[in-house]
Amino acid sequence: MKKFAVLGYGTVGSGVVELFHRNEAKIEEKAGSPMELAYILDLRDFPDSPYADKFVKSIDTILADKEVTVVAECMGGVEPAFTYLMRCLQNDISVVTSNKELIAQKGAELLAEAKAHSCNCFFEASVGGAIPIIRPLHRCLAANEITAIFGILNGTTNYILNKMLTDGMRFEEALEKAQKHGYAEREPSADVDGHDACRKICILSSLAFGKHVYPESVYTEGIRQITLEDAYAADALDGAVKLIASVIKLEDGRILPAVMPMFVPHENLISRVDGVFNCVEVCGDAIDRAYFTGRGAGKMPTASAVMGDVIEAVKHHKTVFSQFWIDAGTQDFVAGIDELVSGMFIRFEAAQDVEALAQNLSAILIGIGHDEDAMDVIDNACVISVKLNAKERALILDKLNELGMKPAHWMPVMDA
Amino acid sequence: MKKFAVLGYGTVGSGVVELFHRNEAKIEEKAGSPMELAYILDLRDFPDSPYADKFVKSIDTILADKEVTVVAECMGGVEPAFTYLMRCLQNDISVVTSNKELIAQKGAELLAEAKAHSCNCFFEASVGGAIPIIRPLHRCLAANEITAIFGILNGTTNYILNKMLTDGMRFEEALEKAQKHGYAEREPSADVDGHDACRKICILSSLAFGKHVYPESVYTEGIRQITLEDAYAADALDGAVKLIASVIKLEDGRILPAVMPMFVPHENLISRVDGVFNCVEVCGDAIDRAYFTGRGAGKMPTASAVMGDVIEAVKHHKTVFSQFWIDAGTQDFVAGIDELVSGMFIRFEAAQDVEALAQNLSAILIGIGHDEDAMDVIDNACVISVKLNAKERALILDKLNELGMKPAHWMPVMDA
Repeated sequence: MKKFAVLGYGTVGSGVVELFHRNEAKIEEKAGSPMELAYILDLRDFPDSPYADKFVKSIDTILADKEVTVVAECMGGVEPAFTYLMRCLQNDISVVTSNKELIAQKGAELLAEAKAHSCNCFFEASVGGAIPIIRPLHRCLAANEITAIFGILNGTTNYILNKMLTDGMRFEEALEKAQKHGYAEREPSADVDGHDACRKICILSSLAFGKHVYPESVYTEGIRQITLEDAYAADALDGAVKLIASVIKLEDGRILPAVMPMFVPHENLISRVDGVFNCVEVCGDAIDRAYFTGRGAGKMPTASAVMGDVIEAVKHHKTVFSQFWIDAGTQDFVAGIDELVSGMFIRFEAAQDVEALAQNLSAILIGIGHDEDAMDVIDNACVISVKLNAKERALILDKLNELGMKPAHWMPVMDA
Repeated sequence: MKKFAVLGYGTVGSGVVELFHRNEAKIEEKAGSPMELAYILDLRDFPDSPYADKFVKSIDTILADKEVTVVAECMGGVEPAFTYLMRCLQNDISVVTSNKELIAQKGAELLAEAKAHSCNCFFEASVGGAIPIIRPLHRCLAANEITAIFGILNGTTNYILNKMLTDGMRFEEALEKAQKHGYAEREPSADVDGHDACRKICILSSLAFGKHVYPESVYTEGIRQITLEDAYAADALDGAVKLIASVIKLEDGRILPAVMPMFVPHENLISRVDGVFNCVEVCGDAIDRAYFTGRGAGKMPTASAVMGDVIEAVKHHKTVFSQFWIDAGTQDFVAGIDELVSGMFIRFEAAQDVEALAQNLSAILIGIGHDEDAMDVIDNACVISVKLNAKERALILDKLNELGMKPAHWMPVMDA
C-alpha cells in the first residue's frame, strides 16, 4: 500500500481526488501497487465531502506519517507551497506539483533537494495542463539538440484572440466573454499581460537547456495592444495572431526566451490551434519538429497530468529521474529581445494603394540587401518573411513613416 | 561505461549511429553515464565506414559480451529480429526496436520475456516515428480511461491524399510522385493498402487497452478507391479525406480498431496535418483529447525515437517499466467493422439538384428517426453528421439509389 497526499482542495486538487477515485483500479495497476489517498491538506472545512475524514490542516500531520510516499501540491503560489515541498523532500517524500509559479521561481532548488534525497520532483501539470510535454521533452526527445520551442501556453489569451476574429469582437469584449465563461480571472493581468505564459516558457527553457531561466529575465508582452484590425489583416494574409511563448537557441549557445504576440502563418499547425487549447512545438536537430496539443487548463485535464506524475512517483520511488537543471548563478546565457531576428507583420493606420505599398516595400528591402519578393501585401497590412535584425526592422518602420504609410502596429513573424 | 549495440545498418540503424556520435555528450549526460556503441550487426560489409571496426556478422558476438546493456534493433521484419531480441532478453540485455511489424506480431511475447528477465523492451520508434506517443500514452496519460485513439499513422498515404487535393492529381499520379521523392516504396501495398497503419494501430490499441491486438483482426482498407472528386468534395464540405487508423472503446468494454479513409471535419486538427506528417489524437476521460504531431518516418526522426529509448534503457537498466500488455488468447474483445457507428460522407456519381438532394436526405433521416438538420450538402456530395449504425447507413444508400441519386463512394465521418 502506497500512501499519498494532496495539498490544496481547489479546482485542481479536488480534480485529482475525484480522478483517483474514479479510475482507482486502473491507476493502481499502472502504479504497480495499491494506493491510498491518505490526506488532503486544506485550511478550509469540507464537512459534506465524501472525503471529510481525509482533511488535515497541518503539513506536519502528513510528514509524521512515514508511510506517505508522494505528495501532490495543487495550492498555487510560491509560499507556503515551496516550504511544504522542501520539507516533504527532506523527509524523503517525492513531490508532484501543478504550480508553474513555484517551478518557474524555485525549480532549481526543488530539483536539487529532490536529488539530494534520492526523491523525485515532477511537474508535468505545470505547463500545458493535460498535454504531456515535460516528460516527452526531457525523455523521449533526449537524444536531440533542442534548437527552439514555440508555444501557445495560455488558453485564455488564445480564446480571446480567436473570439476577436471569429465573432468580430474587440479585445475588451472578448475578455469579458472569457471572464463570463470562467476562462479568465476577474483580475486578468496574469493571462493577458503574458505573465502566465512567461512562467511556462521559463520552465520549458530551463528543462531544454539545463539552466534555470527566471521570469524576470524574459521579455514579456501581452495581447492588450492587439486590435480587431490586426486579427482581420493577419487572417487575410493567411495567418493568425497568437500569443507565442518561445525560446530560441542562438549560435553562440545563449538562448532567447520571449513572450509576445506573433503572426503565425497558416502553414504552421500552431495557427490552427484555437479556443482554450494549448500547443507546444519543439524543434530539434533530429526530429525536425513535433507538436503537442491539448487542453492547457481545467480541472480534470490538469488532474490527469498530476495523477500521471503521482503514478510515476509511486512506481519509481527512489529511482531518481534526471529531470534536472541547475541555477547557473547568473542569467548571462539569456539574450534580450533586441537580439531577435524575425520577419515582420505590419499593419497600417489606413488603407494604402496596394501597388505603391508593394513597390515601396520592395525598394526598402532591396536597399538593405534583402530579397524584395519575400513579402505579401494587402491594402492595410503586409508580411515580410525575410529575417531581419532589430536595426533593420526599425529602419523599415522609419522609412514607411517617412513615406507617409504610417505603421500602426507590427509584430514578429513566427518562423519555425 | 555502458555498452550498447545496433542491429541493422540500414536507414534507421545508420541514423542511430550518426545521431549517437553527433550528440554523444548530451546523450551521455541524459543517460547518466558514459556510453559506448560497441557493435553494429549487419551481414553486409562497410569497409569505408568510420565505424568499420564495430561491425559484426553474428548476434553471438554481441551476446558473448557481458558488458552490453542495451540492443537497438533496426532491421525490420519479424525474423530474425524476433529470435535475436528474445536471445538478448534471455541474456538480461534490454531491447529497443523501431520495428512495428515485430511489435504488432510479437509484442506480447517480447514484453513477457522482458519482464521475466527484469529487462525493458521499448518501441517508441515503432509508431509515429519522431513523435513521442508510446511513452506519453502509457505514462503521462496513465490516469485516464482511454476512450478512443484516432491517427494519421502513415505519412506516405497522407502525402498522396494531400498532393491529390493541392495539385489536382489522381491517385496514380500522386503515388508516382511519392515514389519519385522516396516517400513510397516501389511495391507500395504496405502503405496504400493500410497494412502499415494497421500494425501501428495494433500497437497503440494493445498499449491502451492491455491486450494484444493482432493485425489479422483489424478491418483494414487503403486509399486506392479515393478519387480526386472525393478530395475536392471533402474540401468543399469543410473537411479532408485522411487515412485514419482508429480504435474506439465500446460500451461493453470491447474495442473496435480499424484502418480506413475517413472524412475529417476541419474543426479537428487532424484534418490540418498534411504532407508526410503523422498525428495521433488520444481521447481520455480526464484529458478530453490531446494531439501528438510530427514526422512519422525518416532516418533522423526515427533515430531520435530509438536513441531516446536507448537512453532510457541505459539509465534505468533493471528498473522494469510496466509498458505491458498480455496475449489474451482470443481476439473476442475486438469488434468488427459492422459495429461502427458513424456519420457519412457520400459522393454522388453526378451533380444533383442541391435543393432536391437536401429535401430527399431530410426525408430519409426523419424516416429513420434522426435529426434532419444534421447535414451539409453540395451538388455532388453530402456530409451527414448524425451517428448511424451499419443498417441505417445501408438503408440511406439504398434509398438514395432508389431515388436515382447514385452514390459513387461513401466513407465514415471521423467523430472525436
